[in-house]
Amino acid sequence: MEKEDLLACHQRIKPFIHNTPVLTSQLLNGMVGASLFFKCENFQKMGAFKMRGGVNSIMQLTKEEQKRGVVTHSSGNFAQALSLASKSLGVPAYIVMPSNAPNVKKEAVKGYGGQVIECEPTLEARELAAEKIVNEKGATFLHPSNDMDVILGQGTACMELLEEHPDLEYVITPVGGGGLIAGTALAAHFFGQNCKVVGGEPLEVDDAYRSLKSGKIETNITTNTIADGLKTQLGDQNFPIIQKHVDEIIRVTEEEIVTAMRLLWERLKIVCEPSCAVAFAAVQKEKNTFLNKKVGIIISGGNVDLGNLPF
Amino acid sequence: MEKEDLLACHQRIKPFIHNTPVLTSQLLNGMVGASLFFKCENFQKMGAFKMRGGVNSIMQLTKEEQKRGVVTHSSGNFAQALSLASKSLGVPAYIVMPSNAPNVKKEAVKGYGGQVIECEPTLEARELAAEKIVNEKGATFLHPSNDMDVILGQGTACMELLEEHPDLEYVITPVGGGGLIAGTALAAHFFGQNCKVVGGEPLEVDDAYRSLKSGKIETNITTNTIADGLKTQLGDQNFPIIQKHVDEIIRVTEEEIVTAMRLLWERLKIVCEPSCAVAFAAVQKEKNTFLNKKVGIIISGGNVDLGNLPF
Repeated sequence: MEKEDLLACHQRIKPFIHNTPVLTSQLLNGMVGASLFFKCENFQKMGAFKMRGGVNSIMQLTKEEQKRGVVTHSSGNFAQALSLASKSLGVPAYIVMPSNAPNVKKEAVKGYGGQVIECEPTLEARELAAEKIVNEKGATFLHPSNDMDVILGQGTACMELLEEHPDLEYVITPVGGGGLIAGTALAAHFFGQNCKVVGGEPLEVDDAYRSLKSGKIETNITTNTIADGLKTQLGDQNFPIIQKHVDEIIRVTEEEIVTAMRLLWERLKIVCEPSCAVAFAAVQKEKNTFLNKKVGIIISGGNVDLGNLPF
Repeated sequence: MEKEDLLACHQRIKPFIHNTPVLTSQLLNGMVGASLFFKCENFQKMGAFKMRGGVNSIMQLTKEEQKRGVVTHSSGNFAQALSLASKSLGVPAYIVMPSNAPNVKKEAVKGYGGQVIECEPTLEARELAAEKIVNEKGATFLHPSNDMDVILGQGTACMELLEEHPDLEYVITPVGGGGLIAGTALAAHFFGQNCKVVGGEPLEVDDAYRSLKSGKIETNITTNTIADGLKTQLGDQNFPIIQKHVDEIIRVTEEEIVTAMRLLWERLKIVCEPSCAVAFAAVQKEKNTFLNKKVGIIISGGNVDLGNLPF
């Protein structure tokens, strides 16, 4: 990947995304002893950075492919992102979701124009269901995180952040499937001034931490975390980028995630997902690393159930 | 008041305030059939637009007056605003608060450097306590809303909104003591292109609605509203401006306020007070007035107790 690929990607998706605002808080700065710049992708269209990768991956298909549609399996933000991105671009979207996915998630996908295909809640069933759509409709399967066009799209959030604050010394993102941190790492590499990239990861799903240590993709042993967006695994497209360009992964406990989440709500006045709080919790945990530094934090999304808050 | 007074005020306070972001939501636009532009003063320093008027009113004092300090009685956002504004400007701030005010409010004032003076929870007691500070310390009393310098300061939020979106056809604010809507009305008059100003007010505290009808300042009969920032009364400084420049006051029920508040949290992904939701609820209620119009909405503040949400 080259600088030009990211620039072209940003130009391409610009009409379909928000350039989200960057918030600051003197109080939070004081608490951690650093200057924090929160890139608020919770204000992105459909409420998460995933819109960026969704739009880019569809736009990179041929007209013929676009006509036949796209398919993915996800019950999270990528399902909604692909649905809204498809709607914006006039492309059919087929979203395979487990039958036990919350109704509000299914309704959100339908609300954005996606077609929900229900399947049994097993990995095998969802892969079979997606394959069936590929075969029957000729639709293109798009992976939520292990896809170079998705990775480039996700990287544009960090590009915008660095356009506004070129002298950031760190950028921190949560780590789930690895698409966001890989894209961020590329953006920081090409557009930062020696800007390091750090990941925040729940101790409960520390596959990225262990993978960086061992040098190969490790799988999650437990997935018992409130940060439901981060339960996914790294893939062979994003892992090499993470290996090459990510400085460190900091792991945080469930309690640290909830405390950080509440602080973001109370002090930044934003509604954000537990997954976002993981990145901020990492800064709180390793204050010494970031002392007196300029630190960007990607607030990844804001799709949270207000009826089920952890505080 | 002239255009130049507002321009000078904005220049004066700029170093001490945030130019807050303006958010949009296609989904909310679709729901009301208008183009909405939310000016997010919940992201203002200390979490509310009151910072603007607080800073301006202190900066308009002489050096001698500033040295002797400022005093107000408030248990709401103006208490915190005056405390932080005073701290930013190196001025002592004395805040008279009723002894039964929530501890979190007293702590917030102290956290921003204000000196809390407790009094019995009666109007008489708080006025006496404030008078005592004026006499003993030579401090200047500043009113939260019925003060021309405060009004001008609050108007700068609408100025910034119109700088970004000059062609707004309406701007809507909640109405409490009248400082925000009066300042907004002046800003819209001087900087808008035929931009109308509308107020949202809880039915439970509809003094502004009734005052506009009768032509004189009416008092509230009940104050039984969740929008605790709006229980205050209009004053003789702001009422004439409201009479002259405000188009209409729309009243909303408590249920409409809570529904609107939840929508703002869920869809805009922002933490905002019930008082802010009153302005958005007014647009939802009188959809026909705003159909296909460009409408600015001032989100007034975000200081809300997460442990005590109405949903």
